[in-house]
Amino acid sequence: MHHARTVGLQEQIGKFLDGHQDELCRRLKEIDGKGRFFEDLWKHVEQGGGRTRVLERGALFEKAGVNTSSVKGVLPAALASKLGTEAQRFSASGISLILHPDSPMVPAVHMNLRYIELGDGDAWFGGGADLTPFYPYREDVEHFHTVLKEACDRHDPSYYPRFKRWCDEYFYLPHRNEARGVGGIFFDELRGDMLKSWAFVQDFGRSFLDAYLPIVGHRRDEAWGDREKEFQLIRRGRYAEFNLVYDRGTLFGLETNGRAESILISLPPLVKWKYDYNPAPGSRESELQEYLKPRDWIQRTQ
Amino acid sequence: MHHARTVGLQEQIGKFLDGHQDELCRRLKEIDGKGRFFEDLWKHVEQGGGRTRVLERGALFEKAGVNTSSVKGVLPAALASKLGTEAQRFSASGISLILHPDSPMVPAVHMNLRYIELGDGDAWFGGGADLTPFYPYREDVEHFHTVLKEACDRHDPSYYPRFKRWCDEYFYLPHRNEARGVGGIFFDELRGDMLKSWAFVQDFGRSFLDAYLPIVGHRRDEAWGDREKEFQLIRRGRYAEFNLVYDRGTLFGLETNGRAESILISLPPLVKWKYDYNPAPGSRESELQEYLKPRDWIQRTQ
Repeated sequence: MHHARTVGLQEQIGKFLDGHQDELCRRLKEIDGKGRFFEDLWKHVEQGGGRTRVLERGALFEKAGVNTSSVKGVLPAALASKLGTEAQRFSASGISLILHPDSPMVPAVHMNLRYIELGDGDAWFGGGADLTPFYPYREDVEHFHTVLKEACDRHDPSYYPRFKRWCDEYFYLPHRNEARGVGGIFFDELRGDMLKSWAFVQDFGRSFLDAYLPIVGHRRDEAWGDREKEFQLIRRGRYAEFNLVYDRGTLFGLETNGRAESILISLPPLVKWKYDYNPAPGSRESELQEYLKPRDWIQRTQ
Repeated sequence: MHHARTVGLQEQIGKFLDGHQDELCRRLKEIDGKGRFFEDLWKHVEQGGGRTRVLERGALFEKAGVNTSSVKGVLPAALASKLGTEAQRFSASGISLILHPDSPMVPAVHMNLRYIELGDGDAWFGGGADLTPFYPYREDVEHFHTVLKEACDRHDPSYYPRFKRWCDEYFYLPHRNEARGVGGIFFDELRGDMLKSWAFVQDFGRSFLDAYLPIVGHRRDEAWGDREKEFQLIRRGRYAEFNLVYDRGTLFGLETNGRAESILISLPPLVKWKYDYNPAPGSRESELQEYLKPRDWIQRTQ
C-alpha cells in the first residue's frame, strides 16, 4: 500500500484544471474565429460533477470538446482488482480535450490529464496526448513529438522514451493492425515524488497547444475537396472503433454510470463506414498507412 | 458434458446457410431495384472462411450486408471458461444479415443464425432478429413481432416469450438507458432435441423476410428530407455504440482474429454524433423514445 497523498494537492489540482480549461477554450475559440463553446455543468450520480464545454460547426473545428470532471465514489470491483487493491473509496479529477477539425488536412488531436486518489492514501497521475493526421507531414509529426519530448525532458529524461512507447502500445487497433495515429505520449500510475510528477503534469498540460497549434497554422489553408473529406470520414471510423472498443477511459466511464454525453464527446461528429475501403496504391491517401506503424520520429541515429 | 452432435447435421446446416444467403440476396436485390451485391470469399487465419456479400448505395439500401462463415479453431480461454468447459476445438457456422436503408422512414434490421459444435460433442444453435425504426409505427412493430411469434409457435409455445425477453435484454444500451430498437427475438445455446431446434432455426430464417419486407413496402414511399436524414444519422450513432461496446458477436470476432471487414459490415454507412441531442418535446422524433422501452407488443390483455 502506498501513502503518496500530498496535503493540499487535490485542491491545487482542481484549481489548475479549471484554469487550464479556461485557457484552452479561450485560445481554441480565438484560433477557430467563428465557433463558441457551449457549457454544461453536470452532477455525477454518486458525488461530484463536471464542466463540459463543446464547440460545434466552427470555422476550424467541426467539433471541439474540453471537459473537466471531479468525481468521488466507490472503486468498481473489476478496477480495484486490476489495480491490486480492495474495493474502497476513490476520487478522480481530470481534464480531457478532443479536437476534430473540419479540414481533413488538419490532424485530429486528443489530450488528457487525470489525478486519482484512493481511500487508503494511494494516489497517482495519468494522462497523454496523441495526434491523428489524415494527410500526414513528417515535419508536423516531428514537431508534435519534439514539443512533448522537451516537456518530458525538463522533468525526467526517462519520461519521453517510456511514455512515447506506452502511447504507441495504447493507441493501437489490433483488428486493423495499425496505430490510431502517429502517437505522442501516454502515462498512467505516475507515483513516486508527487510534487515532481505534479510539476511535470502541469508543464505537459501547458505545452500541449505549442505542440498542436503550429500544425494547425501550417495546414488550415491547404485546399481540400470531397475526396479528402471522404477519406477523413472513413479514417474517423477507425477513431470511433478505437474509442468504443478499446479506450479504457471511455469504457470505465460507461461502466461507472458516467455522463454518457461527456464521455462520448470524443466521438467524431460525422463518420463513414465503407466496406473494405483501401486507398489506391501510390495515392496520397495510401501514404498514411506508413505513418500508422509506430516508430521513433525524433530519436534517429544520425 | 453434452453429446448433442447429430450425424450429418453440420453438412446440412452449411448447405442451408449457403442456399439461404443466395435466396436473401436475390430477394433483397430485387426489392432494391438498383444496387448489386459485391461478393468477397475469404479464408480465416486458422481454418475455414466465409462469403461476404455487400450492396452499397442502392435505391433502397444505403448498405446491405449478408455474410456466411464457417470457421474452425481452438476455443479462446475466456469463452471456454464462460461456457463452463475447457479449451478445446470448436467449429462455428453462421449467417448474418444487416440492412441499413437510405430512407429514415424504413427501419434498419438485423438477423443472424449460428451453429456451434465443440470437440467434446456439445453443440447448439443461436440467432435472432431485431428491428430498429427511426420513425416507428405501432402496426409495423406488431407485424414484425407477430411473424416471428408465429415462426416460434410452430415449434414450441415457450420460444417466443423467452426469446422476445432475451432480445430486449440483449439489445440494450445501459449508458443510454434505452433499447437499440423495438426488439424481436434472440436465443443462444439452444440444445435439447437438435432436430427440433434445427427445424425451428430454418423456419425462423425463412420467415425473416416476411417479417421485414411488408414494412419496407409500407414505408419506402414516405416523404423525407434533411431533417429526417439527420435524425437517422444521429440514431445510427446509437447503433454503432451498441455494436462496438456491447455486441458479443462483434467483440468475439475481433478478439479471435476474425475478418474485420466482415464483422464490421454491421456498422452503419454514415453516422453522426451531435453533442447532447434531444428531440424537441412533442416532435415526431420525440415519439421514438417511447418505443425504446421494452414491452409486450402483441401479447396484450384484451
